[in-house]
Parts: sequence; structure tokens; C-alpha cells
Amino acid sequence: MPPFGLLHRRAWASLFGQLLRPSGLTSLVAHISHSFSCQVSEAVLISQLKPHQEKSNFVIKTPKGTRDLSPQQMVVREKILDMVIDCFKRHGAKRLDTPAFELKEMLTEKYGEDSGLIYDLKDQGGELLSLRYDLTVPFARYLAMNKVKRMKRYQVGKVWRRESPTIVQGRYREFCQCDFDIAGQFDPMIPDAECLKIMCEVLSGLQLGDFLIKVNDRRILDGILAVCAVPQSKFHAICSSIDKLDKIPWKDVRHEMVAKKGLAPEVADRIGDYVQRHGGVSLVEEMFQDSRLSQNKQALEGLGDLRLLFEYLTLFGIAEKISFDLSLARGLDYYTGVIYEAVLLQTPAQAEECLNVGSVAAGGRYDGLVGVFDPKGHTVPCVGLSIGVERIFAILEERMKTAGLKIRTTETQVFVATPQKNFLHERLKLISELWDAGIKAELLYKNNPKLLTQLHYCEHMGIPLVVIIGEQELKEGVIKLRSVASREEVAIKRENLVAEIQKKLSES
Amino acid sequence: MPPFGLLHRRAWASLFGQLLRPSGLTSLVAHISHSFSCQVSEAVLISQLKPHQEKSNFVIKTPKGTRDLSPQQMVVREKILDMVIDCFKRHGAKRLDTPAFELKEMLTEKYGEDSGLIYDLKDQGGELLSLRYDLTVPFARYLAMNKVKRMKRYQVGKVWRRESPTIVQGRYREFCQCDFDIAGQFDPMIPDAECLKIMCEVLSGLQLGDFLIKVNDRRILDGILAVCAVPQSKFHAICSSIDKLDKIPWKDVRHEMVAKKGLAPEVADRIGDYVQRHGGVSLVEEMFQDSRLSQNKQALEGLGDLRLLFEYLTLFGIAEKISFDLSLARGLDYYTGVIYEAVLLQTPAQAEECLNVGSVAAGGRYDGLVGVFDPKGHTVPCVGLSIGVERIFAILEERMKTAGLKIRTTETQVFVATPQKNFLHERLKLISELWDAGIKAELLYKNNPKLLTQLHYCEHMGIPLVVIIGEQELKEGVIKLRSVASREEVAIKRENLVAEIQKKLSES
Repeated sequence: MPPFGLLHRRAWASLFGQLLRPSGLTSLVAHISHSFSCQVSEAVLISQLKPHQEKSNFVIKTPKGTRDLSPQQMVVREKILDMVIDCFKRHGAKRLDTPAFELKEMLTEKYGEDSGLIYDLKDQGGELLSLRYDLTVPFARYLAMNKVKRMKRYQVGKVWRRESPTIVQGRYREFCQCDFDIAGQFDPMIPDAECLKIMCEVLSGLQLGDFLIKVNDRRILDGILAVCAVPQSKFHAICSSIDKLDKIPWKDVRHEMVAKKGLAPEVADRIGDYVQRHGGVSLVEEMFQDSRLSQNKQALEGLGDLRLLFEYLTLFGIAEKISFDLSLARGLDYYTGVIYEAVLLQTPAQAEECLNVGSVAAGGRYDGLVGVFDPKGHTVPCVGLSIGVERIFAILEERMKTAGLKIRTTETQVFVATPQKNFLHERLKLISELWDAGIKAELLYKNNPKLLTQLHYCEHMGIPLVVIIGEQELKEGVIKLRSVASREEVAIKRENLVAEIQKKLSES
Repeated sequence: MPPFGLLHRRAWASLFGQLLRPSGLTSLVAHISHSFSCQVSEAVLISQLKPHQEKSNFVIKTPKGTRDLSPQQMVVREKILDMVIDCFKRHGAKRLDTPAFELKEMLTEKYGEDSGLIYDLKDQGGELLSLRYDLTVPFARYLAMNKVKRMKRYQVGKVWRRESPTIVQGRYREFCQCDFDIAGQFDPMIPDAECLKIMCEVLSGLQLGDFLIKVNDRRILDGILAVCAVPQSKFHAICSSIDKLDKIPWKDVRHEMVAKKGLAPEVADRIGDYVQRHGGVSLVEEMFQDSRLSQNKQALEGLGDLRLLFEYLTLFGIAEKISFDLSLARGLDYYTGVIYEAVLLQTPAQAEECLNVGSVAAGGRYDGLVGVFDPKGHTVPCVGLSIGVERIFAILEERMKTAGLKIRTTETQVFVATPQKNFLHERLKLISELWDAGIKAELLYKNNPKLLTQLHYCEHMGIPLVVIIGEQELKEGVIKLRSVASREEVAIKRENLVAEIQKKLSES
């Protein structure tokens, strides 16, 4: 057995599962990358680069709220992204890409209270630009600009938000989003139901444990505020208070509404009667019967759509994963109908940390956004979702750390070694042949490496096969093929090398 | 046969090859996305989004020098990136990712005359930041910051440069780079030779036509300037003039040196004797014999390394692809040794456009860059390369346009259809079953679509299979499975649906 697990398909299944094979190994990979002594060469510095260390207060770091992703992190990340993208493709989506920055005016007045978190570029002459804040607004801009009337697209890319990392723990200023959206005028709630189905497929597929998707509708929320006699001018502010109900208890939310946002206490109490409720499709029916709410046209439209949505979700077999939650508000300005947010459910033992997990996927309907960009105001109804891959990534990273599981960061299949001096030429010819045959191969960049060093490298890196060439082999026209795990060696004819290796690799 | 070619492995081989199967079809994909009438809904605009069109001079566009990538472009792009990444992995590289922006001071004084092209972020309180200009400087910063002494890594990501798109045609301000680098103290020229091997593998693999890799060494260039008696203070300026020799003739370069950069005419002529030369390993030997150059220590070191490099390149079977070109200078400040640049060779008929193709891959050795970041000045020698995927992408896109080849932008395998009204529930149950089995499936988001509309959609989108359910099938407990290409239909048992589809798909 190699010193650390090579992550095959099955191992990945267990990585994403609850059960992980523990391993008491120290971090071998880290060990390797630091174990070689640093022989600083007397490099001829042709260019006139000025060393940073000559400056007074030089600190080498990444910008606040950002980080590098190590090879280990990249392996986990790519596995997660592959799974998410597979799901998006299963639902017929095309991939789109948009620039990292947009004209500043494209982003203004789209994000409500969060607009201050947008990164602007310096005015260096020319257009005023901002880094994108999400992938939804660029998508709407794309649809309007190209007059596309229907499209099912996905996009994976980084977005940037100037959040204060100290306030919102574990939140980065640069992070990856995976979005799936359906644009077009269709019969009601069919695309909306598919979006919820996709969220279930992704979260089940990643085996993150039990989860729940909270669903609400902006029109129901507006209806509640209206029938509770909240002044229209306070709708936004009160909504953002309600949105905090998943993080702080009702009495604190109520206090904020009354003390900070100037709402009458009896109005706040009326709101409280509604927004503390959640349940299944039966709650939808109950709200239909509510004497006050049933008088509100918007609320009735929202409830009607939710009723239809639950019908489709039942056909998709996911209705029990969905909770109609009257407190769900979602911060962004552009939503117009159904909204949803997936949260992971923790076991009671972990309940304390429950509040910090936050949502791992969210989305909703935004029927007006494209029209904002269209020169004639023509709109295209849209509904979509975003997977919070950073949080999922953090959860899986933590799980791996706990289990002590190591990951291969390279895919090298064969190592080319020699026990003898002055065999660099033979090694180079040999490895070139392997590369040309599409075999993933490495050697040490040394004229005369020790055999033990070469074999250790293979064990540390999890390389399964070694090809060994020496004086004797050269004379006899053979090559030794060694299995690193079993330490077995077989002699094979030089001319059969590639075929034999390919056979070995297909067997494992 | 479906109306446009589904791009299977073989079709891709021909796409990347010189021969393309022509097709007289109009752009069906574009047709589909525009053919549906836009029934603008009277969306209830809950949020207070302000329409852009109310503003006076509203133009909807992407920022200057940037563009969206359509689903068609994304398919081609991902194929190219997959091939490049496959090659990097074949050579044992790990993947790294760094933030889109760095502290401004990390980027200053690294790019010579091009530093003015760096995008700065607006000072919004906090650190001064700049968008990354390449992936090399962030890599060096990563090595120094984490005290990594050896690493073979690749990175794929966007970089940003404020180039004037009107001056340098077809160059974007946002573009993708694919970098492979080897960091560490090793025996000379082994990693350097591998970098050139990788460039050959990528360019051959993408079947871009014949190519040549120009090689030079910064120390040889500096040696030439020294023995030609160029004042040290003018080295940088003269180097950047020499670098233009692939775009403009010697007499113009000479004029620039003399008239603009104040070089004595006889010094320029001496330089001209050197930098207009190119050839194979024999030119290296010839330069060793050069009475002036052989007096220069730096030049001799460079020539010695090139001699060794050619030895290894011969073993790799790529020596004939390499040209020792004394005019190659490379703009960036951080190179210290061997430098290289791959250019595509055009057939004589296309010679006129030859100059516009430019380099499709480039790189070199930069032994001093990590030391600039290290607090104690410890350095890590590095050598690497960057694949110019944007240019490769443009070439392949042009080739496809000429050939009229259409690309599938989705991977949908099965379409769920019905000839009858009121069958939405059955369709939803059925498609949910397919998704849960991992089958890529779509349906129309309509309660009662016409059968013809559904079948047309499959033909247009290149979906190979259709599952049809109706009153009769429901009664008999069967499903019709239709092949879109042959229009053949077979009845299969409802409970065997998934198995039968998987069988069909594995056959095709």
C-alpha cells in the first residue's frame, strides 16, 4: 500500500461521505516540498529588479480577504466544480463567460444596501469600471445586449465583494460562484421547480449531510408588510431586518424594527405573527385562508405560484426537502417572485455551530432585471440559483483535515529511474517516448541521482510505477518495470515498454 | 443524420486538423435562440430597480477591450484548455490559484516599459491593489511567501492589461493565460529542455500547423550589447528595439536605435551583424568562435547553456523545431537566462498575414524574481512557459467559421416529449427519473407543447434520443423511445426505461 491514499473514484465517494478512512500520517506532501535544502544559486541578475526587502515596511502577503489556493485545495475544488457542472449539464445548460469587470453603471442600484461592497477600478482615463459582484447582473446584461429571449446557461467564475472579513467570519472578498439560470417566458413554475431540483441534486451528490431548502416569495413578503400597515418607504429596511431571523432571535429583530427603523410596536408584532411561521404545502393553504393576507393581490399571486410549485416538487420527489419559510427575504434588490435558500442541517451535537454554516445555495426569480438593461425596456423573465461552493469547499476541507486524509496533487503514472551514473541521456530518451505516448511521467532533474532518492520520491508522491534503466538493461535491450506498492520488478523488452505500461495502468 | 455535426472525439480531431468537413448550413443555433417570439410578461416589479434607458447617454456594452464568451466559444475554449492542462499534468505539474489582484507594490518594477498597462483598483480605504498582469509574478510571490524551494506547478486564469486594442489588433485587455513553471535548484538545462518539450507537445497536439520556437539567452544579448560598446544605461532601451525585429525590418530598428535612442550609427551596425542571425546548434558553435563575443563571460555562460540545451532537445526529438535567434529579447524585466517564443509558420500564400499571428507560446528563465520577494533575499531559480490560448482560440474559431462547422453547446442525451395535452405531470415524473439516473435530459417548459415543436427542438439542438409518453403508452405501461437521426421508434417497458436508454447511449 502506498504511504497515503491515492484518491480514486471510490475514495472520493468516501471523502464526500460521512465516513472517512483515518490515517495517522504526517503531512508528507508538505514534507517533500520543504525537505530539499535550498542551494541558492549565484544567479546573474541581468535585469534591474529592485528587492522589496530594501523598503522599510515590506510585508509579503495576499490582499486582505483573499488567499492563494494550494494544489491540495485545488484538487478538492476541481472535484466539487466538476460535480456541480455535471449537474448543470444534465439539465441542458450552456456555458457562458463574462468579463471580470463591467461598466460601473451596469452594477449600480442592483444590490440594495450591499452596493458599497463593490470594488471599483481606478480611473486611469477611459471608462469607469467595477469588478463584478455576482454572475446574475452580467447575465442579465448579456441577454439584453444580445437580445436573447431564452437561454438556459451556467457560469462558473470569481466574484469580488469588499466584505469585512472580521465581521462576517470565514467570508472571503474573492470567491467562486456557480450559477445556473433559465431565461425566457414559459408556463409558470416549471423552470422554478427545476432550479430547486438542481439544488437538491447538487447537495445530495456532494453528500454534505441533511439539508433543507427554505422557500418564500417576494410578493408574499410585500403583501405581509402591506397588510401589517408598514409604510411603503420602510419596506426595504424592514425586509432586511426580517432576513436576519435565521441568525438572531425574533425579539432582537423586533427591537431593530422598532428602535432603529422606527416601526410602531404593534406593527412589528403583527409582522412577527407571520414571519415566524414555516411549514410545508399545508402552510400555503393556511395562508390562503388568512383573513388579512387573502385580501392582498400580490400575496395571492405568490401563494398561487407556491401551491403550483409544491405540486411540481412532489412530482420531482423533493417536496419533503422544501420548507415554506415566511422569514426568508434575500438581500438582493432584483428578486420579484419566488426566492429560496438551502441550509445544511446539523446533528444536535453540532447545533452550536449551526448558525455559522449559513446558506450553501440560493436563488430566485428576477423578472425585471433584463428590462432594466434593454434600451426599450423589454424584459425577459428569469429564474436561477447560485451554489455557494466556497462554503461547501470549507466543509469538505475541514472534514478531510479531521480524517487526516491526504490527497495526490499530481497524476504522474510512471517515474523514470536509474541506479547508475551518466545515464541522463538514456533517461531523457525514455521519458520522451512515454510523454509522446500520452503517459504521465516524471524524472529527477539531476545528472546522477541516487536510486533510493528516486524511489523515495515515488513513494512520497504516490506514483504507482517505476521504469528502471541501467547498464545491464541497456545491453540486454530490456527495461525493469517496478510496482511501487508491491515492490515487484519485471523485465520487459525495450520495444514493448509503452504497451506494457499501458496494460499495467489499465489493470489498476 | 442530424442537421449539424455532433462534435465527437473524431470530429474534434478534424476540427483541430487542417481538413474540415464543410457544411452549408445556416447558423441553426443562433436561429433557435431567436426564433421564439418574446412575450414580455407584465412582471410585477417588486424591487425599485431604475431602468438604464431613462438615463441620457445609455449604451449597453462590455468594457473596452473585453468581451463575453458565447456558449459556442466556451465549448472550443474548454477543449483547448483541457488539451493544454492534460499536457501539463503529463509532466507532473500541480495546479495553483492566486487572487485576481495583488498588493500594488508586488507588481511594480517587474514589467519594464509595460508597467503603465497595469490596472489599479480605486483606493476605497485600505490597501492599494492592482489586477494581476501575468501569472508569473504571483507565482514567485507565492513561492517566497510560503518558503517553497521547489515546485512544478501550472495555473490557468485571466490576466488584465490596459493595452490599446486599436494599436495592437486582436489583443484583448482581459485574456486567459496557461502557465507551467518549474521552480528549484537543479542540474542545468534539464527543466529548461522540458519546458520546450511541453511547448512542442501542446502546439503539435492542437494541430495548429507548422511552428518554430525561437531561443536566445538574456546573457548572450547582454554580452552582445557589451562587446558592441552600448552604454550600460541604454541596455534596456536597445533591447526593446531589438525585440521588434520580428515585426519591422532591420533598417527601421536601426533608425529607432540611432535617431530615437541616441546610439552611434557604427554601434548600431555592429549590433545588426549579430541580431540578424539565426540558426541551429551550429550557430551556437559559431558564436563560441566569435572573436569579440568569446571575450564576454556572460555570453560564454549563455552559449554553454544553449549548447547543453540543444543536446537535450535532440534526445527529446525536437531539435529541428528550435531556432537559435539572436534577435529574440522578450519584453519582461525578470528574465535572466534562456528565453523562448513559439511562432506559427504560414504557407507562402498566407505570408502577408504572417506578421500578425505573433507568438502563441513563450517563456524563459527567471532566477532572480523569487529573491526580490523573499525577506532575506533568498532566491529560487525558475523556468517556465505561457501558452497564448487566446490567439490559438482565435485561429481555431476562424478555421471553424471558414469550414461552416457547427458545435453542440449542450450535452443533452434525451428529450422527454408527449403528443397529448395535460401530460405535464407524467413528463415531470419521467424526466425526474432520468435526472436521478444521471441521464442528461430536457423538456419544454410548457403545459401543452405541440409534438412537432418538441421534435424540432431535438433536431435543432442535436439531441439524439426522445422518450415519448401518451395516453396509450400510459395505459400499456410502456414508453416510446425514438432515435432523432433515424426517426425509428421502439416501445419499451416503463420499468426498463433507464436501462434501455443507458444501453442505447453506450452503443452510440
